[in-house]
Amino acid sequence: MAKPIWIKNIHQLATLASKEEGPRSKTAMSELGIIDDGSLWIEDGIIQAVGSTKEVEQQYANRLQEAEIFDATGHLVTPGLIDPHTHVAYGGSREREFEMRLEGVPYMEIMNAGGGIHATTRMTRESTEEEIINQTTKRLDSFLQHGVTTVEGKSGYGMNLETELKQLRVMKQLQETHPIDLVPTFMGAHAVPPDYKGKEDEFIDHLIKNMLPVVAQEKLAEFNDVFCEKDVFTPEQSERILEAGKMYGLIPKIHADEIVAYGGAELAAKVGAISAEHLLKASDEGIKAMAQSGTIACLLPATALYLREEAANGRKMIDEGVAVAISTDCNPGSSPTTSMPLVMNLACISMRMTPAEALTAATYNAACAINRQDRLGSLEVGKQADLVLWDVKSYQELQYLFGVNHTKVVWKKGVKVVG
Amino acid sequence: MAKPIWIKNIHQLATLASKEEGPRSKTAMSELGIIDDGSLWIEDGIIQAVGSTKEVEQQYANRLQEAEIFDATGHLVTPGLIDPHTHVAYGGSREREFEMRLEGVPYMEIMNAGGGIHATTRMTRESTEEEIINQTTKRLDSFLQHGVTTVEGKSGYGMNLETELKQLRVMKQLQETHPIDLVPTFMGAHAVPPDYKGKEDEFIDHLIKNMLPVVAQEKLAEFNDVFCEKDVFTPEQSERILEAGKMYGLIPKIHADEIVAYGGAELAAKVGAISAEHLLKASDEGIKAMAQSGTIACLLPATALYLREEAANGRKMIDEGVAVAISTDCNPGSSPTTSMPLVMNLACISMRMTPAEALTAATYNAACAINRQDRLGSLEVGKQADLVLWDVKSYQELQYLFGVNHTKVVWKKGVKVVG
Ligand SMILES: [Zn+2]
Ligand SMILES: [Zn+2]
Repeated sequence: MAKPIWIKNIHQLATLASKEEGPRSKTAMSELGIIDDGSLWIEDGIIQAVGSTKEVEQQYANRLQEAEIFDATGHLVTPGLIDPHTHVAYGGSREREFEMRLEGVPYMEIMNAGGGIHATTRMTRESTEEEIINQTTKRLDSFLQHGVTTVEGKSGYGMNLETELKQLRVMKQLQETHPIDLVPTFMGAHAVPPDYKGKEDEFIDHLIKNMLPVVAQEKLAEFNDVFCEKDVFTPEQSERILEAGKMYGLIPKIHADEIVAYGGAELAAKVGAISAEHLLKASDEGIKAMAQSGTIACLLPATALYLREEAANGRKMIDEGVAVAISTDCNPGSSPTTSMPLVMNLACISMRMTPAEALTAATYNAACAINRQDRLGSLEVGKQADLVLWDVKSYQELQYLFGVNHTKVVWKKGVKVVG
Repeated sequence: MAKPIWIKNIHQLATLASKEEGPRSKTAMSELGIIDDGSLWIEDGIIQAVGSTKEVEQQYANRLQEAEIFDATGHLVTPGLIDPHTHVAYGGSREREFEMRLEGVPYMEIMNAGGGIHATTRMTRESTEEEIINQTTKRLDSFLQHGVTTVEGKSGYGMNLETELKQLRVMKQLQETHPIDLVPTFMGAHAVPPDYKGKEDEFIDHLIKNMLPVVAQEKLAEFNDVFCEKDVFTPEQSERILEAGKMYGLIPKIHADEIVAYGGAELAAKVGAISAEHLLKASDEGIKAMAQSGTIACLLPATALYLREEAANGRKMIDEGVAVAISTDCNPGSSPTTSMPLVMNLACISMRMTPAEALTAATYNAACAINRQDRLGSLEVGKQADLVLWDVKSYQELQYLFGVNHTKVVWKKGVKVVG
């Protein structure tokens, strides 16, 4: 039997507890449930008590000597960060393409040399399951070092059944062996495969008839995602894919309005998507529709930075009543990073979110975006003991001292996995 | 006697060796002196041999068993990073001001509540030398964790003799006690002190008559810097300050053309400044003048990010023949960060520099910007053994996998100080 853990003297404990049910919007995004000189009692991987050091000490007065004691004097403690949007399980690496672009090699030349998303598709198809597991493990280790305890991961570099299944099986296996919780999303409609160019509807028939049933039967995914964008899949095509997924119990997500306003946000609200992603160019109507339907906006400011785009207007979305989550978008083409702390910083710097909103977006609202708010995303009695002790004294400092990974100790299910 | 250190099997050793003398510009910024399967022999804090593993092994064949051996299989090794522009030695912290701005509190209200640069001046004046040493030590520790082995630091939060001297003495003391090499710059003309508002020339008289001689006599600085900007100090005023500094042996630096094109780059060339800083709005003529005079452009892309400004046009400056260095600008108002790795990433992302140019800008050219290229900035025989082993296999990966601190091991003067 593992000892109980008593964390005490926490300078600032941001529990993220709130009376709000479901995804938090407007002022509820600023409710961090702060406890000064806070304390947690953890047993069997579950939070048993949260309060001031004095309160927890009194509650467990007759068991204190059983516990492993951790003194958190001078530190901030928060829930483990949650990354609700990644493409983490892929083969290969594209640093040479990054260099070529900066050396001024024309885009088409890079594409003709096998660059871009199709390079990753090729490398993912060619990699063995073991090779992808090894690469993905390294990425997940890095996430953990950055205070991230749960990661959503999408397929989508297969574009054929065999490789889509390979990506999803890699995630299933890592869920069993890696400390990080991995939440799988099927994204067969990530791009139009070259052999289906101009025959998108045929590809969608194929996806619905031959891919979705297998993914569902093997229980390899919880969510179904699609790249709804001009010259990729139209809103109508996206709707077909997402509605078909719903028949198999897969919850819809949508890559929406990244490059042009294309009705993606509106569609997200219409099909009852749990979240819509990117939204750099989302229309005012789309934003209003999402606020009404309770669809979470999953914003990706590191991707915007990397692509030199103006980030999504997180400030406006929150003011309009949309619940906002944030994510790395970890992928080899447009956001090769694992740093959720940087993403929180960018939420403040590039999207004008407050330090408190950025923390909610990376914890509780991120948990909602992957349907895990019943056990993750806040530090409340009965929830999983996923938490981070930071080398700063407050959530304000965490966002202000930017570009630095302040993660010091990480507990996953009550087990210290970093520090 | 300390053992010699033999680092071998380095997957990619970027020595930064080049035939170019002085600051590197144009294609010389891409010459990384790469050695595959590289090796270093270090003794007495000095690099004694650089080459392939086989070469160094043969050279020291009869002393191999004396050495402490470090196997760098799979890793990139580079010179220690150099940050040539910081305001690292200050009192207090301004995270609450950061939050207030994002909460929408009007700028003037924050200023009236004692915010902005004058908040730091007040806190620096009120702090004891020991308090500033403690705070600055924590920042320098963080620099070291990010692969930075040398840091330039400016005074300028005193705006009176007493506090300027306090900042410079703090740096002098830290130079003796901290592993990082600290290079001091006097920047009495960082802003117009409130009591001299409208009487800038009087303040300059005071600075020249009462501050510079003391700084010079106590040998507290090597460089003399000024904030040349509209509504701060004019080019004429800046010139007076810098020319006076030269009389005392202080090498000129200039904060130039950050907010508007103001002739700062032109002045840098005219007075023979070793570097000009920021340069977001530098004119074409100014850039040409700097290329001709050999003045280094010290660019600060993290500051631009934090202030949501378009970064300086590093690509254009390099193409025009200017030698570029990069820096964090570490300061409590416009760039509270210690991450030179992020600054390198931003050099690529925001300023379209290549991965190789970004590394040169953060090592060899940064050494030139603080007049240390004789012993720092590259891994060559006879130079100080300041180096970093990174948790990536190539300099391309170092820039591509962005927002992550890949520092794994740091040696300063041949002593392992991180990892
Ligand atoms: Zn995505
Ligand atoms: Zn500065």
